[in-house]
Amino acid sequence: MSQKSAYNVAVVGATGAVGHKILELLQEKDFPINKLKLLSSKRSAGSKQVFNQEEIMVEEAVPESFEGVDIALFSAGGSVSKKLASEAVKRGAVVIDNTSAFRMDESVPLVVPEVNKEDLKDHQGIIANPNCSTIQMVAALEPLKAKFGLRRIIVSTYQAVSGAGNEACDELANQSQAYLSNEEMKATILPVKGDENHFPIAFNALPQIDLFQENGYTFEELKMINETKKIMHAPDLSVAATCVRLPFFTSHAESVYIEVENEDVMVKDIWEVLQHAEGIVLQDNPKEQIYPTPLAAEGKQDVFVGRVRKDLDNKHGFHLWIVSDNLLKGAAWNTVQIAQELIQNNWLQR
Amino acid sequence: MSQKSAYNVAVVGATGAVGHKILELLQEKDFPINKLKLLSSKRSAGSKQVFNQEEIMVEEAVPESFEGVDIALFSAGGSVSKKLASEAVKRGAVVIDNTSAFRMDESVPLVVPEVNKEDLKDHQGIIANPNCSTIQMVAALEPLKAKFGLRRIIVSTYQAVSGAGNEACDELANQSQAYLSNEEMKATILPVKGDENHFPIAFNALPQIDLFQENGYTFEELKMINETKKIMHAPDLSVAATCVRLPFFTSHAESVYIEVENEDVMVKDIWEVLQHAEGIVLQDNPKEQIYPTPLAAEGKQDVFVGRVRKDLDNKHGFHLWIVSDNLLKGAAWNTVQIAQELIQNNWLQR
Repeated sequence: MSQKSAYNVAVVGATGAVGHKILELLQEKDFPINKLKLLSSKRSAGSKQVFNQEEIMVEEAVPESFEGVDIALFSAGGSVSKKLASEAVKRGAVVIDNTSAFRMDESVPLVVPEVNKEDLKDHQGIIANPNCSTIQMVAALEPLKAKFGLRRIIVSTYQAVSGAGNEACDELANQSQAYLSNEEMKATILPVKGDENHFPIAFNALPQIDLFQENGYTFEELKMINETKKIMHAPDLSVAATCVRLPFFTSHAESVYIEVENEDVMVKDIWEVLQHAEGIVLQDNPKEQIYPTPLAAEGKQDVFVGRVRKDLDNKHGFHLWIVSDNLLKGAAWNTVQIAQELIQNNWLQR
Repeated sequence: MSQKSAYNVAVVGATGAVGHKILELLQEKDFPINKLKLLSSKRSAGSKQVFNQEEIMVEEAVPESFEGVDIALFSAGGSVSKKLASEAVKRGAVVIDNTSAFRMDESVPLVVPEVNKEDLKDHQGIIANPNCSTIQMVAALEPLKAKFGLRRIIVSTYQAVSGAGNEACDELANQSQAYLSNEEMKATILPVKGDENHFPIAFNALPQIDLFQENGYTFEELKMINETKKIMHAPDLSVAATCVRLPFFTSHAESVYIEVENEDVMVKDIWEVLQHAEGIVLQDNPKEQIYPTPLAAEGKQDVFVGRVRKDLDNKHGFHLWIVSDNLLKGAAWNTVQIAQELIQNNWLQR
């Protein structure tokens, strides 16, 4: 495939929370689109979406949908990706997949452009977009790793309900209103739609994101651990994670503890690196009460970092507070960035 | 003072959130009271509180209020304690102080009964009740330290707004209702009433609890670090903390990472110890989605522990998720427990 001036793009899961954000970004970034196909499950097919002032019908995603498609952006859940990604590739499309279906496949690059965009070169048709909470963390930590060496990460997350989809957002709003009106809170979605039990998220904290695995970790925690090592090309990096769902709608926050190799590093050195890091905005001035918050990060494409502190008892240790919009850098924006990189570097062809 | 059968008790700050809980507990536990005095600031004096079906007038706390008082329970803020605790002691009372005024004084025992009740013996009239987030953490970790050795704690907190008082609870409720009604959220209390700027807590997370100190840590974070070492008698224990305020009313949760000395410890060994630990309830069964949450812990006196996991990359490392009602074990209940221990062990007299 030679370099084109515009591309046929398919968005699979166009009616979902991430799908919407992808469409907004393709528009905002003037993505070079020749023809745009909006695809979804049978259930959501038939609705219409406006793109660049044009109404587009959402069609059911089937193998034949991908005929003539150059770039297919998948965010319709793991089972859809498993079923249709290879069909899209077979028909000549490059797939950028937002689900966990292929992330740990050795043949699939798992990419955060600021960290490892060179990995895109080796794609075999499918590229995986990492988990939301992983993306913002590695975006902030990679420049520190490059400068000071990184031997350890211990992260506790503060994650927004929109990571569990639009239904979870409705549940938070409905439960909050019920609680404030002294009515019973109904829980049918969170912590995990497909799991046995559901608990209220409003005015609460749920230490479960995604299903529990045999070893007592949740799948979200294992995603953070394994994806971080893969993206950073650091199989020996020590990564520990606890993931918690909280009652806010948008943006994940993370309390991240790291150990750098170099024990002479000071807070100002960390600041210096982060101030010049791509995609990172440093918001760190305790005297002026300047620090990132989920509400302030909503709608922004950057990763915000604050509360940088050196451990008082360990010369290698630092705290960081990392916040980003989970639907943008954590999902839609990283996906669109990958597509842009593929085009700019002429990496679409295999 | 010889052992009495009933005591004259003063509750200072009787109209506040913690004061209310102290009164409820004195009643529930049949605390041996001869005469109960309810004291407050001038502003709140004159109101009435019901105790054991009797109406008691709240009086303004002045030095003379403590004449004849055996036990004075202070929770009216640091400045009141600094002004009046010594006046109470001068008049023969033993003070149990809920503020941070005296906690780090070398001559003042800082006590969580399950951890270091023996320290009460050496009191010189004032005993300090630790910070809420510290109490629940050390209660869960002390038995693990005793059994396996403990070399390191890294904690990220998820703290309820009631820790900032009744006004903060009203603010969360009002902001939540405003947000749900598409109205502007007004912030005048949180993150810290006395600080320059205020930010919405509803559907948000604020990585600031108490004022920032020169070194970039908040006072709450330094309290957790310093108080933990004092209570556990472990000046060389490495403690690192990040404290975050979240939009729920009651109970603090904590994502706690520890390193034990012994590298052969398994999750079942941790369970075994916690199952038999005083004041601890183990709620840890991932297969059944059993784990502690702030909402479920509300109104309970115990410290709940779940999500116990061994670090996949470090044989010494474990995760715990520790939740407790910040107004009960984190404040009122620990205070009343101290008073009970003083009586039971005949430690009131100096």
